[in-house]
Amino acid sequence: MPDPAVLFTDRSGFPPDGPPRAVVRARTVADVQRTLAEAGRTGTPVVTRGAGTGLAGGAVTGRGAIVLDVSGLDRILGIDPVDGIARVEPGVITADLDRAAAEHGLMYAPDPGSVAISTVGGNIATNAGGLRGAKYGVTRDSVLALDVVLADGTLLHLGHDTVKGVVGLDLVGLVVGSEGTLAVVVGATLRLLPRPARVATAVAYFASVTAAADASIALSAAGLRPAVLELVDGRTLAAIDDLRGTGHAGRGAALLLVQTDGYGAGEEIEAVAAVLARTALTVETTLDPATAAALSAARRDALPAIEAKGRVLIEDIAVPRSRLAEAIDGVHAIAAATGTDVFVFAHAGDGNLHPIILVDTEAAAQQAADDIFALALALGGTVSAEHGVGLLKRAWLERELGADALALQRRIKQLFDPAGILNPGKAL
Amino acid sequence: MPDPAVLFTDRSGFPPDGPPRAVVRARTVADVQRTLAEAGRTGTPVVTRGAGTGLAGGAVTGRGAIVLDVSGLDRILGIDPVDGIARVEPGVITADLDRAAAEHGLMYAPDPGSVAISTVGGNIATNAGGLRGAKYGVTRDSVLALDVVLADGTLLHLGHDTVKGVVGLDLVGLVVGSEGTLAVVVGATLRLLPRPARVATAVAYFASVTAAADASIALSAAGLRPAVLELVDGRTLAAIDDLRGTGHAGRGAALLLVQTDGYGAGEEIEAVAAVLARTALTVETTLDPATAAALSAARRDALPAIEAKGRVLIEDIAVPRSRLAEAIDGVHAIAAATGTDVFVFAHAGDGNLHPIILVDTEAAAQQAADDIFALALALGGTVSAEHGVGLLKRAWLERELGADALALQRRIKQLFDPAGILNPGKAL
Repeated sequence: MPDPAVLFTDRSGFPPDGPPRAVVRARTVADVQRTLAEAGRTGTPVVTRGAGTGLAGGAVTGRGAIVLDVSGLDRILGIDPVDGIARVEPGVITADLDRAAAEHGLMYAPDPGSVAISTVGGNIATNAGGLRGAKYGVTRDSVLALDVVLADGTLLHLGHDTVKGVVGLDLVGLVVGSEGTLAVVVGATLRLLPRPARVATAVAYFASVTAAADASIALSAAGLRPAVLELVDGRTLAAIDDLRGTGHAGRGAALLLVQTDGYGAGEEIEAVAAVLARTALTVETTLDPATAAALSAARRDALPAIEAKGRVLIEDIAVPRSRLAEAIDGVHAIAAATGTDVFVFAHAGDGNLHPIILVDTEAAAQQAADDIFALALALGGTVSAEHGVGLLKRAWLERELGADALALQRRIKQLFDPAGILNPGKAL
Repeated sequence: MPDPAVLFTDRSGFPPDGPPRAVVRARTVADVQRTLAEAGRTGTPVVTRGAGTGLAGGAVTGRGAIVLDVSGLDRILGIDPVDGIARVEPGVITADLDRAAAEHGLMYAPDPGSVAISTVGGNIATNAGGLRGAKYGVTRDSVLALDVVLADGTLLHLGHDTVKGVVGLDLVGLVVGSEGTLAVVVGATLRLLPRPARVATAVAYFASVTAAADASIALSAAGLRPAVLELVDGRTLAAIDDLRGTGHAGRGAALLLVQTDGYGAGEEIEAVAAVLARTALTVETTLDPATAAALSAARRDALPAIEAKGRVLIEDIAVPRSRLAEAIDGVHAIAAATGTDVFVFAHAGDGNLHPIILVDTEAAAQQAADDIFALALALGGTVSAEHGVGLLKRAWLERELGADALALQRRIKQLFDPAGILNPGKAL
């Protein structure tokens, strides 16, 4: 059981504005129903949480709120390999589900960086992305149906248990990514896919971030469809070298990690390598899982290596992928202007970059973050591709959505939660 | 310009309950805004339509309504091959968009049977599926952002122009599939994918529908991931023989058409063929597009061949794919019990079957349809996988969704359209 204190915040490090009124560790759906019914009667805010790995403050509690911990609802209720469907409770760790699916030759596609520590319910709350998103999309694309408890304690089944279904409005899509503000997810019917027959890996070093970003675009232009397409910038490579004693930074100023999968993985990775070789300093490919793991270690080490340097703000903007190089250059210009250390790695296939700001002074770090959000919008992008708005990005909500769209969204929130008890002050 | 009379119904053949008050042929977004603002002021119902190819009566006009024809908003505004994005108006014919994408080596994945005659806007209204859905999903999966006109004439941009984005609730998903009841779509930002490097095709004949359905399941169990996985039953094969003078029915009581795509298409289709060969009477594969077209002609001829026999009801139930054989057997039992002719073909990969009821007497055909809907629900499925509820399936709405979920959906409808002017009496 975790220290109760950690139940009051998440990995954003954002402090709660006061102690909660109560902590409910739900073990059953009925626990959740009773909690919400009681909260509704007393007008008490409810902050639902899973593993507390969120990065935007969505699970930070407020003074006097009920902390509703659903991490104990952690059963995989069933995997049907014929239908390619899993039924789970929200507290299941995402990597555990993928491992269980693998026993049937299947895969649960969404694989956020936090896959080993975050829950399916948390991934649903933020519509989490991940490395395989380049080919397999985000959490939303894998959710067929949800069991939710509404603000008044009513239990409702939303969506279809079939792969396709168009009867009624898509309330599943509405709840996915709503960060605990519309309903509490107590069960999910998820789509599983056949585990790819083969996975092939390429790693290339480039003389500049721009060259790496341009190469990632050249891959799509060549009709290639990698499952993974990740970029790591030179500052991050140096941080990894500091942590691991490796020599990445000596090999180039940016790295691309590419994986292809399926029957043609081997042939497709050679086509990938041919495109990369046009501009890369070096390119290496492999079909061997152990070699692939060694090649992709840099990407996996990126965040720990930066976090080893101090407290960080982890951002997740996205831009049209044609503007990825411009976005990364812009982030580095902002770092210079604000006197901050900013590291960048990116899900390049989706135009989704993670600027990681090392916090020296709070003011400078916040200024850098705000400038990065403004840059994202100026390039036609979004301030959050996969972490959510939570507490941290609320100031940017109206600038991104516009007043009319935001007003409509808030009316939908009000319809679901007239008393405003579900995660008030977050997201919307 | 079509005969005005055909503007009053769709391909469901469902008759309007009276003449409309006016027909507006919108040429600009402002035309749509003015129409809705005026309709709002006067409380006049608005029935939006594209090409009128819907099969559920969603575009059937009502007495005194304004028919808002947006088929004239038919421009492809732009294709950005680097970002893999198309910007279109709603009246673009879906196949035209896919052809335009192909010029850039890209593909617009959704390909409903009506792809050559239906519009992108109509596909969005119903969340249309298609043959490639087994691998590439439904229309929803390709829509990034929408420009919509609300019931009061306000123009709003929903969604993100980037591949990923989690700021705000997913209102795009809410509007997709809402059958003209929430807003009028006047523009769409769509995702394009690299056109697969190769496509390979297999056709197999089986001694029974059950054997074919079981073989389709064996493909997923073997970890294969076809882009197309279609089943045609024996009655349909006989109808095709009647139309074309072919000899399909002599070769088996059911046919499976399978396509794989991507770099490994050739190798994967051989793996497909090996699985099919365990139980099939015959299996044939090809990488040659002309041979593939010949092999897949039966699937393309299925609906025309049945329609050549008389007026039909075209249904689109889905069941968990493990119950596909049971569903097809059940449909044939219903045909026998109701004395109707029912033909079945199916997107087997999605558990989505099309029972096509030949209308001899209205009463018998309606009884067969109702029995088929009941069967779908009894098997854990849905009464509509891709055509929508429209007018035809409203009686089944509450049975499928449940009273609580339906009530919540109707409150959302009311929030978007307080005066109830948008396609009243349809879908919800």
